[in-house]
Amino acid sequence: MAERFEIVQKALQKMLEDKKYATLRDILVTMNPSDIAALFSNLEEKQIPLMFRLLPKEQAAETFVEMEPDAQELLILGFSDNELKAVLDELYVDDAADLVEEMPANVVKRILKQADPEMRNTINQILCYPENSAGSIMTTEYVSLRPHMTVGEAILRIRRQGVDKETIYTCYVTEGRKLIGLITVKDLLLAEDDETPVTDIMLTNLISVTTHTDQEEVARMFSKYNFLALPVVDKENRMVGIVTFDDAMDVMEDEATEDMEIMSGMLPSEKTYLKSSVFELFKNRIPWLMLLMVSATFTGLIITAFEDALAAQVALTAFIPMLMGTGGNSGSQSSVTVIRSLSLGELKFRDIGIVLWKEIRTAVLCGISLAVVCFAKIWLVDHLLMQNQEITLMVDAVVCLALAVTVIIAKVVGGLLPLAAKAMKLDPAVMASPFISTIVDALSLLVYFLFAKALLGV
Amino acid sequence: MAERFEIVQKALQKMLEDKKYATLRDILVTMNPSDIAALFSNLEEKQIPLMFRLLPKEQAAETFVEMEPDAQELLILGFSDNELKAVLDELYVDDAADLVEEMPANVVKRILKQADPEMRNTINQILCYPENSAGSIMTTEYVSLRPHMTVGEAILRIRRQGVDKETIYTCYVTEGRKLIGLITVKDLLLAEDDETPVTDIMLTNLISVTTHTDQEEVARMFSKYNFLALPVVDKENRMVGIVTFDDAMDVMEDEATEDMEIMSGMLPSEKTYLKSSVFELFKNRIPWLMLLMVSATFTGLIITAFEDALAAQVALTAFIPMLMGTGGNSGSQSSVTVIRSLSLGELKFRDIGIVLWKEIRTAVLCGISLAVVCFAKIWLVDHLLMQNQEITLMVDAVVCLALAVTVIIAKVVGGLLPLAAKAMKLDPAVMASPFISTIVDALSLLVYFLFAKALLGV
Repeated sequence: MAERFEIVQKALQKMLEDKKYATLRDILVTMNPSDIAALFSNLEEKQIPLMFRLLPKEQAAETFVEMEPDAQELLILGFSDNELKAVLDELYVDDAADLVEEMPANVVKRILKQADPEMRNTINQILCYPENSAGSIMTTEYVSLRPHMTVGEAILRIRRQGVDKETIYTCYVTEGRKLIGLITVKDLLLAEDDETPVTDIMLTNLISVTTHTDQEEVARMFSKYNFLALPVVDKENRMVGIVTFDDAMDVMEDEATEDMEIMSGMLPSEKTYLKSSVFELFKNRIPWLMLLMVSATFTGLIITAFEDALAAQVALTAFIPMLMGTGGNSGSQSSVTVIRSLSLGELKFRDIGIVLWKEIRTAVLCGISLAVVCFAKIWLVDHLLMQNQEITLMVDAVVCLALAVTVIIAKVVGGLLPLAAKAMKLDPAVMASPFISTIVDALSLLVYFLFAKALLGV
Repeated sequence: MAERFEIVQKALQKMLEDKKYATLRDILVTMNPSDIAALFSNLEEKQIPLMFRLLPKEQAAETFVEMEPDAQELLILGFSDNELKAVLDELYVDDAADLVEEMPANVVKRILKQADPEMRNTINQILCYPENSAGSIMTTEYVSLRPHMTVGEAILRIRRQGVDKETIYTCYVTEGRKLIGLITVKDLLLAEDDETPVTDIMLTNLISVTTHTDQEEVARMFSKYNFLALPVVDKENRMVGIVTFDDAMDVMEDEATEDMEIMSGMLPSEKTYLKSSVFELFKNRIPWLMLLMVSATFTGLIITAFEDALAAQVALTAFIPMLMGTGGNSGSQSSVTVIRSLSLGELKFRDIGIVLWKEIRTAVLCGISLAVVCFAKIWLVDHLLMQNQEITLMVDAVVCLALAVTVIIAKVVGGLLPLAAKAMKLDPAVMASPFISTIVDALSLLVYFLFAKALLGV
């Protein structure tokens, strides 16, 4: 499919170069705005406005929304005031607000000047809600119905107003701006009698969020309840907007990406990989690398402290990477599982006892299995096969005991730290692999050397 | 909110115990099926059928779908044949198919016996599609329109058939079972004239998937195009079903969880954390731990090979954990970024050149910055502050040179391996942190010892 798209893309670009505008336009009008937007990202700068002006008004606006910020900026800078106004008039308010957030100050000024007063007001209002709140992703364009309406009147209102609304499929019944019920177009269409009052068939058991609800929580509610849209109310239960499922999907995707980035020791990025400059990648990656490198000083100090033991039993050094690696992997398995359960809303801090008990038992099973296999492997491979006489039964025992204990510590630490982070209102994802590895590295070395001292007397 | 829910839950459970069934029923009918299902998971076994029988027929079916498999199984085993049939008749076909997949063989037999022949047929058909394909998550209950219909006739058909369909908002125009267009209820309602033929306003530029399209690809299309539903066709472009946005959301969530699990060296789990037994957690976690532990033999061998060098310069040992840790973190940053871009569809294998060039430049920036800071830290802290005379300027230089080279190797390996996996049709997520750490561990030790040999002459 991707290949087919490229062929189409090349053909269309050729038409643009050959100035076959009429044919090009005929093809463009049949395409999906997302695909047209993708076309733009491969055009030369001067071709962008040329192609954009071929699109019919409504399609142009829909395509504009899907375009990359740099292409949008380029277009706005080239627009006449009238062209800009025409595009803005076609945008849904939440898309316009997104646009304003992305653009540099001079462009924003032009946009707000051309937007009609009502839209300007709404944009400003949306921009004032905290980042990542329901208010910041909602749209104010929904269909509202009055309690005195009948089914027939409601359908009529939808037919009159619907064209400007982001969704018409869920309508909200409000009384003095207070949200009192919701009704779907399905219920309206399937109602047996057009004279039925909407209050008879509306749902009153409402699930709503407030403007300050975190967007992650909003996305979770969508995946739990399978809603098409979710009403957003203010503190007085007055209806202020709706969040639609497509915005919730974007949030889900972004939050999962962010969790993965944080879990692997990066700052969350605003841009996708291909759009990020090398310097931006560097800026996101270096802080944790630096911090973790410096904090590895502790492991260094522990090794230095036990230098004599290592000198007496050189064979011990060879198992350090295996011990730390297995400890790190064990810990990150537990932490990633717990972090994911926390962000899907399955786990809460109060479940700490359950997690602890589950992790301890799993860790004991893993620790013993690994130790048994490791013991056999060291004896068969390192001692018998490689003929390493320094590896005595006692050395083997020290390594495997340390391994079992390390795995147990790692899994318990890995399971509990994300919960602790949650309790301290930190992002649990920060407690993933790199951070836990550093802690587990230090602990596993300590355990190792203490066993060596006790059993080998070094 | 979670707390409020618990209070409600306790109150309802009390009513059940006190046999206040009428009041309980009055409250239940106002509640959302997802929330009622959550109630059930805290009831005692014998209370489950009791509470379930209080629900009106349709709500009972909707609640049933949202329940955990063990509660479903318990209910089915307790149902009379008539009760089972009543619930099955209310289920959407894709939910029934999901149910059949979850239940043990004896329960499946009862379900298929009670389902009406048409549903049984469809269930069997859906079950035959490969796991994780569009066919396996689609429903066959959609509204299909004929090309000769007018807007008015189409609306009439929706009003007649809609009650049994999973979504009525997107309708499909088919001719001899071939999909020729789609039309939304919004377009139908906003059409100016009821006499307009649907072929005049239907969209013919169709985006569809086939029954064998991977569900991850399906979810990607939803998040790209913001569809409510996506038509599924067979090889001859004959319409066989639709996937709805709620199923796509579940897929997105599951795929992200699966990626995170695989990336941290676990087998993907079918159940959530709290539902998994200790033995299931163990089974998912031990294979990679075992494999990675055994493969750490290589790092052990490298250390053994350079034992003399370490004995001559004991200070070198202290920096091994820092080197391996920083290398591992650098590599997993790159691999996780590339894996996520691959699963969001931003990157393709052919972008390998772009990734390589981006990672090399980022790696050089990171490597140099880390080396400079590390050099200063070792000199100031380890040499001057801790008075460790073994750490000469030359030892410091060896560590930092090795660090810079390790970071560069790690980032390049981390960036390229997931792409290589993709090209070999493997899951790129397998190439994340643990796997890459093991490779990078071995490489970083080699680099370290080679620098030590060359510069310190050990």
